[in-house]
Amino acid sequence: MEWINKKTILIVGLGLMGGSYAMALKRLGYTVTAIDTDEDSIDYAVNNSIIDRGSITADKDLIGAADAVVFALYPKTFVEWIDKYQQYLKPGIFITDVTGVKGCIVYKIQDMLRGDVEFIASHPMAGREVSGVKNSSDMIFRDANYIVVPTEKNTPQAVEWCMMLGRILGFRKISVLSPKEHDSMIAYVSQLTHCIAISLMTGTDLEHVENFTGDSFRDLTRIARINENMWSELFLMNKDSLISQMDRFMDELSQIRQLIVDNDTEGLKEKMRLSTERRMRFDK
Amino acid sequence: MEWINKKTILIVGLGLMGGSYAMALKRLGYTVTAIDTDEDSIDYAVNNSIIDRGSITADKDLIGAADAVVFALYPKTFVEWIDKYQQYLKPGIFITDVTGVKGCIVYKIQDMLRGDVEFIASHPMAGREVSGVKNSSDMIFRDANYIVVPTEKNTPQAVEWCMMLGRILGFRKISVLSPKEHDSMIAYVSQLTHCIAISLMTGTDLEHVENFTGDSFRDLTRIARINENMWSELFLMNKDSLISQMDRFMDELSQIRQLIVDNDTEGLKEKMRLSTERRMRFDK
Repeated sequence: MEWINKKTILIVGLGLMGGSYAMALKRLGYTVTAIDTDEDSIDYAVNNSIIDRGSITADKDLIGAADAVVFALYPKTFVEWIDKYQQYLKPGIFITDVTGVKGCIVYKIQDMLRGDVEFIASHPMAGREVSGVKNSSDMIFRDANYIVVPTEKNTPQAVEWCMMLGRILGFRKISVLSPKEHDSMIAYVSQLTHCIAISLMTGTDLEHVENFTGDSFRDLTRIARINENMWSELFLMNKDSLISQMDRFMDELSQIRQLIVDNDTEGLKEKMRLSTERRMRFDK
Repeated sequence: MEWINKKTILIVGLGLMGGSYAMALKRLGYTVTAIDTDEDSIDYAVNNSIIDRGSITADKDLIGAADAVVFALYPKTFVEWIDKYQQYLKPGIFITDVTGVKGCIVYKIQDMLRGDVEFIASHPMAGREVSGVKNSSDMIFRDANYIVVPTEKNTPQAVEWCMMLGRILGFRKISVLSPKEHDSMIAYVSQLTHCIAISLMTGTDLEHVENFTGDSFRDLTRIARINENMWSELFLMNKDSLISQMDRFMDELSQIRQLIVDNDTEGLKEKMRLSTERRMRFDK
């Protein structure tokens, strides 16, 4: 792939995801630079060869030298960054992100952005309960999904570039969804599941619960260790989709509750058979 | 431990759990016998040295030779078995079970049972999504919890014997709970979580969902592959506890929904901090 040769990629935001991107890209032979306001993160990444060089400020030359930029920031910070520093970006480049919500971000960034730089959104679905560059690992992409989220403003070239980025990072499956499809899907499979996990932990204070649980409770609450700054922002930025998915889920759970109230063994078994069948399809 | 020497243990019901008990006990040097109505299960277990001998009927001599019996049956079948065949049990022995609900079973069995045999209930929390003796493994107890569930009718000797059984099987943690405490706990950590997993799969038919999910959705729905015969029975036998735990959970989830509706960032963060703190305590 021609594009790979000698290119420099800038990562803005050197947390778990930014650091993992940097690690994977550097291993592939790219020159990787980074900007993060936290000096320790930059120092750690340089000292551990996760990046080639970095800066704690929006360094004009560092930004201008990048042939592509990956933004691994919280949504609001991403918008602010583009507003303040987009003038330093090299003309003609593609930029992408890792943001977990799209509708409320993608159009805004595309509207703000200079005409000679193209933003193509993407979502690497490879989060962890740990954060920070020190927990970075390029292995987290191996069994994970990657979604490219173009709008009508994007060129086929940018979509192709962004899919290529997902492929070389090592993602298991690359898909393309519209911002609306993405947000509705993510509200269900990611945000709703986090709300459920939180509720399981906050709804009751079970003393010594660890002595009375099987794997099911452990699995359902693993993601209850949650970065409150990031997730509160994500929930509120995808508010409408999330609330409608919460309602859909609670309707369904209430149906199951009613089957139990009614001693409806056959109705319960039917739900369980459907659930088993769908989950088996999912495992394939 | 004196009790171990040359003793014979009978497993009634040779599925995943019965088979795993058999495997572990035989490895420890016990003579293990089994009764199961399915001939294939008995043949498989004999041919693979999981048991010493077995029968597809309630064989009087096989039952009478046992120095202890473990019932690994569905709750209703367990009650029927005791009703029909308890006359064959050797006087003075302890019997136990693996049933996932207790209140509606333990008192009933203890009331039915002859005065010279003692039933001490227990619950090995080591289920899997697979079933049958062919999936047996004595490794499933390694990181699992084991709960002894005595009533006021039980002797300290029976409680001690049952705890010893959990220990030699290799469980991580042995606890003692009353039937009421057990059922309330299990309604929350096991039955509610299964209802949630089912609802996530049945509430919406997401096409190609496997391409758009992270680990969270996978984890929360692993147990959605469910044995509908066993679990519908367990849900209905613990109906009151389960419904009250479902209501508690839905109240909590509704609170989180309301924080999102109100754009209450601080309220959301507070829930997330509490959830994180409790989940970290759980991980210790």
